[in-house]
Order: sequence, then structure tokens, then C-alpha cells
Amino acid sequence: MASDNSASTHTPRYLTGDAPGIREFLDKFDVFLFDCDGVLWSGDHLFPGTNETLDLLRSKGKQIVFVTNNSTKSRADYVKKLEGLGIPSSTEEIFSSSYSASIYISRILHLPADKRKVFVIGETGIEQELRAEGVSYLGGTDPAYRREIAPEDYKRIAAGDSTLLDPEVGVVLVGLDFHINYLKLALAYHYIRRGAVFLATNIDSTLPNAGTLFPGAGSMSAPLIMMLGGQEPVSLGKPNQAMMDAIEGKFHFARERACMVGDRANTDIRFGIEGKLGGTLGVLTGVSSKEDFVAGEVRPAAYLDKLADLLECE
Amino acid sequence: MASDNSASTHTPRYLTGDAPGIREFLDKFDVFLFDCDGVLWSGDHLFPGTNETLDLLRSKGKQIVFVTNNSTKSRADYVKKLEGLGIPSSTEEIFSSSYSASIYISRILHLPADKRKVFVIGETGIEQELRAEGVSYLGGTDPAYRREIAPEDYKRIAAGDSTLLDPEVGVVLVGLDFHINYLKLALAYHYIRRGAVFLATNIDSTLPNAGTLFPGAGSMSAPLIMMLGGQEPVSLGKPNQAMMDAIEGKFHFARERACMVGDRANTDIRFGIEGKLGGTLGVLTGVSSKEDFVAGEVRPAAYLDKLADLLECE
Repeated sequence: MASDNSASTHTPRYLTGDAPGIREFLDKFDVFLFDCDGVLWSGDHLFPGTNETLDLLRSKGKQIVFVTNNSTKSRADYVKKLEGLGIPSSTEEIFSSSYSASIYISRILHLPADKRKVFVIGETGIEQELRAEGVSYLGGTDPAYRREIAPEDYKRIAAGDSTLLDPEVGVVLVGLDFHINYLKLALAYHYIRRGAVFLATNIDSTLPNAGTLFPGAGSMSAPLIMMLGGQEPVSLGKPNQAMMDAIEGKFHFARERACMVGDRANTDIRFGIEGKLGGTLGVLTGVSSKEDFVAGEVRPAAYLDKLADLLECE
Repeated sequence: MASDNSASTHTPRYLTGDAPGIREFLDKFDVFLFDCDGVLWSGDHLFPGTNETLDLLRSKGKQIVFVTNNSTKSRADYVKKLEGLGIPSSTEEIFSSSYSASIYISRILHLPADKRKVFVIGETGIEQELRAEGVSYLGGTDPAYRREIAPEDYKRIAAGDSTLLDPEVGVVLVGLDFHINYLKLALAYHYIRRGAVFLATNIDSTLPNAGTLFPGAGSMSAPLIMMLGGQEPVSLGKPNQAMMDAIEGKFHFARERACMVGDRANTDIRFGIEGKLGGTLGVLTGVSSKEDFVAGEVRPAAYLDKLADLLECE
């Protein structure tokens, strides 16, 4: 499998309707990492057979991890969303980019004691996960930052006024923020210029919603990257391997016994391949097409028309 | 002079203290295009001798044009700003990127009759100039767009609801907007995806203010460029030659008898060189250093410590 999975030139195995092939594939893995939207559901529509498929995997003793780049929700919010769709889950099975970023900040970045606050561009999901890790933050959903920039702000920022630019901020963390504004961008820029580490929960340029696309977390980082002359943030979401390292750090699995399941070749499948997982499984219910999977640059080890086709193994 | 001005390898002539050199230089030109901030003033501080220097040029029969990338002000606003600093001027002497963009839309783009509205990301300067050219617009400073995106907006945008996405919009014009928000970015993106021409008043990533830098007009375009997979706007500000063409179209001067004066090698001086003007004059009261002018990639034909050094010719 490992050689199948290396890149580009193999023909992915088509598993729909191939019961022996599915059984052989499932036997190779103890852990399944699931991308969610486009795999388990689309928007608010649960795909038929999703629950039965997850039940089948659980009944075979497989560990399931839901891996999402959506930073606006915390893991607890995600459990609720899964419940609302009828999928039983626990916080421990969820790995979101807001959680990934929070544990990166609290456990991997070694910040000086007087530089441990995080300036957040983003929504409540990030704040909840930072709080859970005991990390102090400002910005985020605080109404004090949801205002126009005022004439005196320019002078206060230029002067480094500590009531507006907290000297203890050592990290700027940028996720999807539905309340992005000029003041937040100006403050984030000045914090980074003053030495703060530039992190992003993820760098997806767009966010799928209602069957079309809207600005994604990457679009919140874009103005800062331009202002900083091209400096890119460290991204803690797929396909960045900092997220895989964090997942492995938490679940302690053998990578050759893990499989990444996703609908996007360039993020999900790439994430599994670059993470040297034992396998990758594409599904055709989301962004990538059969053409992408069998002839694209990044190809899964195997693919299915839809996730529930795994039920055919029985 | 033309050969001096071609690029990169010549040594710019240093004119401060060189009265005969200054006289010779001034005699070559009938028109002087002035960048403003960093040349005539800095922020709200008028440089000593600015007025006397402009008077000298006017007394010698030179045409003066103030060329600014600042799109937040209209030409009328600029006349007021100049008056406030004690510089007499007329609207006819001002060429701003908001004006440049407006005449590009009204006179150069040949839009179909049912696609002539402009969706504006920007402030009042753009709106005033569009109105003066008889161009219909929406967005801009309209309070209806200064709000959070609502859950139903996603569905309305996805459905192409004509009360939110006006089918007559054929242009998206992006300038500096102190009230940038998620809804405006989402609408601009969808207008461009539906075929609107993507224009920017200018693409400066930062805006100098209070002695430091803040998000510039280019930072408003950055999220859209990322969402559109790298599609860049046509910029109507310096150093884009669309602006030079517009200036020439209005003032009808001979380019070899015109000189661009500026403090930034990469925008002002480049603008003059690529526009094949007869000369370029750098001043050391703004962004670029002597090192930039004498050893950089883009070098002016001549330079001065400060603009008022031109007074030494007498």
C-alpha cells in the first residue's frame, strides 16, 4: 500500500462494488481520519448510509477521527453539529483547526513568559479552544474590536499605546472571521511587525456554503501577507503537516495503520500522502472528480462513488 | 535626457546646490507631475518652501499636475486639503486614482448597456468621481452594506437574488475602504465570478499615516485575488500606465516635455520611466533613500535633497 500511496503515477483502486477489495482495504487500517463536509454530509444534508458506515467501522474496532479545517466551531460545537445530523460522536473524536492551533500554541511554541497572549482574528471556536488550553487571548469576538478605526487610533498604534497594542501579545492567530474589519487588520499587522508569530488556523481561500463559495480563512490572512511583503503564516490546518503531527501526538497511532478519507485531492488526499499514512481513500460526493482522482497530480490509493459503498463489504 | 532615463545603469544627477544644473533641468520640461505625500508634505506637515517652489514653476509657465493614488478623496476634497495646507490649486490640476478609475470606466471600458453599474469597495472619493462621470454605482458608503452577513444572505447570493446581486453590475472597483467587511467581499467575489470586470484604484499594500503603515487599497483586493485563484485587478493608479494614459488624454502634453517628481523609486519614478516621460526627479523627503536612487534598480534622471532646493536656481 505504501508504494501505491507515494504519488502521481499509480491508478487508484476503484472499490465501489468490489466487496473483497473493500474487506482487504479495511483490514489494513486501525484508524480512519475523516474529512467531514463532502464526505459525511454536504452543508446540512447528511448523506444516506453515513451513520451505518461509521457504525460498521466502529464495530470492527476502528478508531474514528473527524478532521475539519472549520475554525469557527470548537470541538464541543462540532459534537453538537454531528448530533444534530444524527451522528453520535465525542469531543475526543474531533480534531478541528482551532484545536490544532491551540495545542500548537500551548504545547509546541515555546513563548517567553511575557509574550504569551494571542491576538485573534476569528470566531468563538478559536476562543473556546484557546481557553481550554489556558491560553490568554484578545480580539476575536470582543465587541471592543467590532468598530470603525478612529482618527486617534492611528496615532495610538504609531506610538505603540499599550492600551491598544498589548505588549504581551506574542502570537497573531488568523481564522475565518465573519466580522473582519480594518481595525483588526491594522492591529494584526502591527503585532506581527513588533515580533508576534503569524499563525493561521487554515489557509482555505474559500468556504463552501449554500452550494457556492464565500470568503474562507485564507482570505483573512491575504491582506496581512500582502502588507508584510509576502510573509506567509504557519497554517495549522490541512494539508499542513503541523496538523497531522498534532493528531498523531494526541492519538498515538502507527501512521502505516491509518487512512485519510476525503473528497478533495489537493487538501485531504495530499494531507494523508504527505503525512505518510498507510492509505488514502477518495469519495466522489464532494469537490474532486473521478478524473482528478485517477489522472490528477495527487491521487488517493483507492476511491469510492460514495462513503456508504463501504457497506458493500458485508 | 531620454537615454539617462531608460533604466538602471546611469548615475542620477544630484541637483542640490547646482544652480546651472537646475536651470538646465527645468528648461527641458513644460509639465511637472507631482506625487504629493513625501514630496510636498508629510501627513499634515507642509514642507518649508513647497509653495515658493510651486510658484516658481508656475511663474516659468510650467503646467503642474498633482498625481495621487489616494482614492478615499475626490479631486474637490484634494483641493480642500491643498488649501488647508496653504497650497492654492484647482480641481483641474488634480489627478487622483478615483478620478482615473472613473474616466477609465466611463470613457475607455465599453460596457454593454445593461452592465454599466459599478459595485464599489471604497469611500466617498470614488463615489464622487463616479457621479461626476455619470456612472451608476452601489456599495461604497451605503449603510445597507455596512452590516454583518446574515444566514439568509448565503442562500440569496447562491440563488443570484437580484435584490442583493444587481444583474446590471458590470464592474467591481476596489479602493481603500475603512469599512471593509465580509459581506462586501462576498458580494464583490460573486459579481466578478458572474463576469464583472475587476478594477482597483491602486494596489499599494499599505497606507502611510501617523509615521507608520496601515492597510492600503491593495489589501482590500488581496482576499479577492486569493479567492479568484490569482486573478489580478486592472489597477488605475501609479505605477500602472493606464493612469498615465488618462493623464495624457486629459492634458495633451508631449511626454518628452514632462517630468515626474516623486519620493518612491518603485512607484513614482517607475511610473515616469515606463510612461516614457522626458525626465524623472527624485526627492529624499519620503520613502526612498539616496542609496535607492543612485544604486537601485529604478533610478531617477536627477534627484534633490528636498523639492525646495529647486529654488536655488535663482
